Amino acid sequence: MEIISDVAQMRRMARAWRGQGKRIALVPTMGYFHDGHLSLMRYGREAADKLVVSLFVNPAQFGPNEDLARYPRDLERDAGMAREVGVDVLFTPPAEAMYPPGYQTYVSVEELSRPLCGASRPGHFKGVATVVLKLLNQVQPDTAIFGEKDYQQLQVIRRLAADLDVPVEIVGRPIVREADGLAMSSRNTYLSPEERASALCLFRAIRAARELVLSGARSRESVLEAVRGIITATPHTDIDYISLVHPDTLREVDTIDPEARLALAVRVGKTRLIDNTLLSESLLCCV
Amino acid sequence: MEIISDVAQMRRMARAWRGQGKRIALVPTMGYFHDGHLSLMRYGREAADKLVVSLFVNPAQFGPNEDLARYPRDLERDAGMAREVGVDVLFTPPAEAMYPPGYQTYVSVEELSRPLCGASRPGHFKGVATVVLKLLNQVQPDTAIFGEKDYQQLQVIRRLAADLDVPVEIVGRPIVREADGLAMSSRNTYLSPEERASALCLFRAIRAARELVLSGARSRESVLEAVRGIITATPHTDIDYISLVHPDTLREVDTIDPEARLALAVRVGKTRLIDNTLLSESLLCCV
Repeated sequence: MEIISDVAQMRRMARAWRGQGKRIALVPTMGYFHDGHLSLMRYGREAADKLVVSLFVNPAQFGPNEDLARYPRDLERDAGMAREVGVDVLFTPPAEAMYPPGYQTYVSVEELSRPLCGASRPGHFKGVATVVLKLLNQVQPDTAIFGEKDYQQLQVIRRLAADLDVPVEIVGRPIVREADGLAMSSRNTYLSPEERASALCLFRAIRAARELVLSGARSRESVLEAVRGIITATPHTDIDYISLVHPDTLREVDTIDPEARLALAVRVGKTRLIDNTLLSESLLCCV
Repeated sequence: MEIISDVAQMRRMARAWRGQGKRIALVPTMGYFHDGHLSLMRYGREAADKLVVSLFVNPAQFGPNEDLARYPRDLERDAGMAREVGVDVLFTPPAEAMYPPGYQTYVSVEELSRPLCGASRPGHFKGVATVVLKLLNQVQPDTAIFGEKDYQQLQVIRRLAADLDVPVEIVGRPIVREADGLAMSSRNTYLSPEERASALCLFRAIRAARELVLSGARSRESVLEAVRGIITATPHTDIDYISLVHPDTLREVDTIDPEARLALAVRVGKTRLIDNTLLSESLLCCV
């Protein structure tokens, strides 16, 4: 595995691969890998001849009062994990190369960026869309792979690629969870043991919603009330949003017809956690 | 020459060319060709193996009260002219393919889009940047060629390509003028004979500014006063802006040091015309 931080060098290597007819997969990440990242990498390893994992903690997607400075970083550990999965290049561009002086171009996926996390984190998806488009242009992969935990991000990026005619296949992969159900996230490291226990309420709420739907519930309020009840009964929690949305448009829906995405963001202590699941009339989809 | 309106077909053809190692040049236009367009095409013909000219009157770059509906169109005439220059593909995507229902992704080159035409035409450069990025992604040319008459547009696109890491060379080519000096523009067809005579004031102002600089003038006010005097003395004119800006940043400058771009937009009757020139301390540059 090579670690490349020079954008021009990354570009040359990818161009050489394309010249040899190799298919390229890209997994964009902010590093501090967990099994969620590794599952994306394993998928990419199978999907293409060459696998690039980018590691860039993107300042443009953090708000002024967010956790950019303390976002966990450990390049050595990450490089070891990536090497084991068989990554070809760990691409680690410096912020000065991504946003040099005079940088001023931003991409907005307007409607999909507004609700949910977009409402709580103004500018977040503009930063995400911009950096992902830059990485796609730098690496020019055939396939780019993202996790469904950041479901709104995945939808924003799908739309970005379709709207701007970027010649890439966007793949979304299922959430990977801890043994007890907590969705894996680099931000889980922020949690104290007590908060870690409380954090499980997101998964418990999701499981309760699924069970409600399995037992016949279809209405927005029945699902959201159950979810809200579970979160508010848990100490150290503060609900950012609980939403039931159309899986493609992310507009709020009144019923699960034939499916809907339950999405939630909850502050546990000072740590903002998100999770989501598909709720479907067709039982097999959401168990 | 082929006329292709299907985006997927254009993409396949360009991909096949790239597979054969052909270099591709793209000249994005809104059609109704004049010698300015043809000079861009001739440059592209020499610069690459394959020449694509796109013809798309882009709704996203017109304001609600602008001339989208009456913008001149004549595909048959344009096709004949393009064929004569040796264009390989005239690419004419329909608006429904460029902006299908649900379309919502836009690109902004923030600072460069604000002054000059950006101030008079809110959203114009967002529309320009977006459609140019789409065309670049559809055709994936090695070189894309633009005229300097739309100088701000050229700077916006240069910045767009650099900031978003689009692997393309952006080339700007000199303004082509009528025999009497009027910068060629598809919008010149809007002018009545009387307005056509008045329209020459833009070039006369530019020539006067150049002569002032040749004779030693360097200050903003001496140049702008002369320009303003010439325009306001001409019937049927209404100044939108007269600006002296840094050629790269488009920020207003106080002196020509070592060079500056004089840019003007003038309404002649109902027709808004633009023109610009480089004013330089080094005499040879601006004669």
